[in-house]
Amino acid sequence: MSELDTLIQYLARLPGLGPRSARRAALYLIKRREALMQPLAAALQAAAAAIRPCGVCGNLDTLDPCAICRDPARDDHAICVVEDLADLWALERTAAFRGRYHVLGGTLSALDGVGPEELNIGRLLARLGPGIELILALNATVEGQTTAHYLADRAQATGATVSRLAQGVPIGGELDYLDEGTLTAALKARRAV
Amino acid sequence: MSELDTLIQYLARLPGLGPRSARRAALYLIKRREALMQPLAAALQAAAAAIRPCGVCGNLDTLDPCAICRDPARDDHAICVVEDLADLWALERTAAFRGRYHVLGGTLSALDGVGPEELNIGRLLARLGPGIELILALNATVEGQTTAHYLADRAQATGATVSRLAQGVPIGGELDYLDEGTLTAALKARRAV
Repeated sequence: MSELDTLIQYLARLPGLGPRSARRAALYLIKRREALMQPLAAALQAAAAAIRPCGVCGNLDTLDPCAICRDPARDDHAICVVEDLADLWALERTAAFRGRYHVLGGTLSALDGVGPEELNIGRLLARLGPGIELILALNATVEGQTTAHYLADRAQATGATVSRLAQGVPIGGELDYLDEGTLTAALKARRAV
Repeated sequence: MSELDTLIQYLARLPGLGPRSARRAALYLIKRREALMQPLAAALQAAAAAIRPCGVCGNLDTLDPCAICRDPARDDHAICVVEDLADLWALERTAAFRGRYHVLGGTLSALDGVGPEELNIGRLLARLGPGIELILALNATVEGQTTAHYLADRAQATGATVSRLAQGVPIGGELDYLDEGTLTAALKARRAV
């Protein structure tokens, strides 16, 4: 197999790229050898070498503890627990939360054999205690909510308070496109205006 | 800027990936450091180092002349001229053509200042002569057809015969979704059954 075929095969394994777009990307890269192809190869190697999980929260960073855990300006009394790094990034982009995070690395799943030991839960409980608020920012899926219930029980036993993200109509959401579950939750959690 | 941000920025420049999917791809790569991230970096570097344009036809390959130009089983008397390497790949996937190729590297465009000297045309004309069929496989765009007319004139002056891809209704195409230009071409080129 030629170098080009090998490259296309690896590119096709990226999420969002199929065989056709991988060929297009390979061609695009080869035409921009100095400007993009070589810098991308170097960036991949640098990131692969430098990035490690944070021993405190499970975030990925070149530092351990990570930049968020080291930031003295952030509130130590609020810990937001997320399933995945992508969720942490999504919350950070809002700039609405200035506490700390904890990345579980997945959800509990009896079917897939994922128990509490397989997730980054022990370290989370060690960070909790009276005066700490744990914010459950898990996905609104069955597995996410099962995990949230489990974490809430364990967290309350440490004396921490527990909250979760509000559920309701998304900003800009049109009611007739929303599922019944979301509408039911929005109705139940309705607020006086 | 961190190694991760640098990586995301380069990934976002690939066609088919935006900022959001570049973040997702970066995360996916970091989770598969040994299985995908490092091999992809190596594949990029190997391809960047090994792949060069073919001095005969303009195809990209690790060999010069390229594998197609070197293949003794292919017909020397038919040369299919395409705008871009992606078009060559598309034709090769059909396995319907067993002649040689010539990659122009673009189309003539007075607006963008692309004249015959900017394209791989001189080498094409040197390959033509009596007994050679030049097949114009340029895109059915204004620029593609302008370039095709120009090439046809120059090629006929060498004594070569010139043909072009048939235009008409695509296989599986539904008439009421086709543009007027395609339908007009298909009507004009209708064949007895």
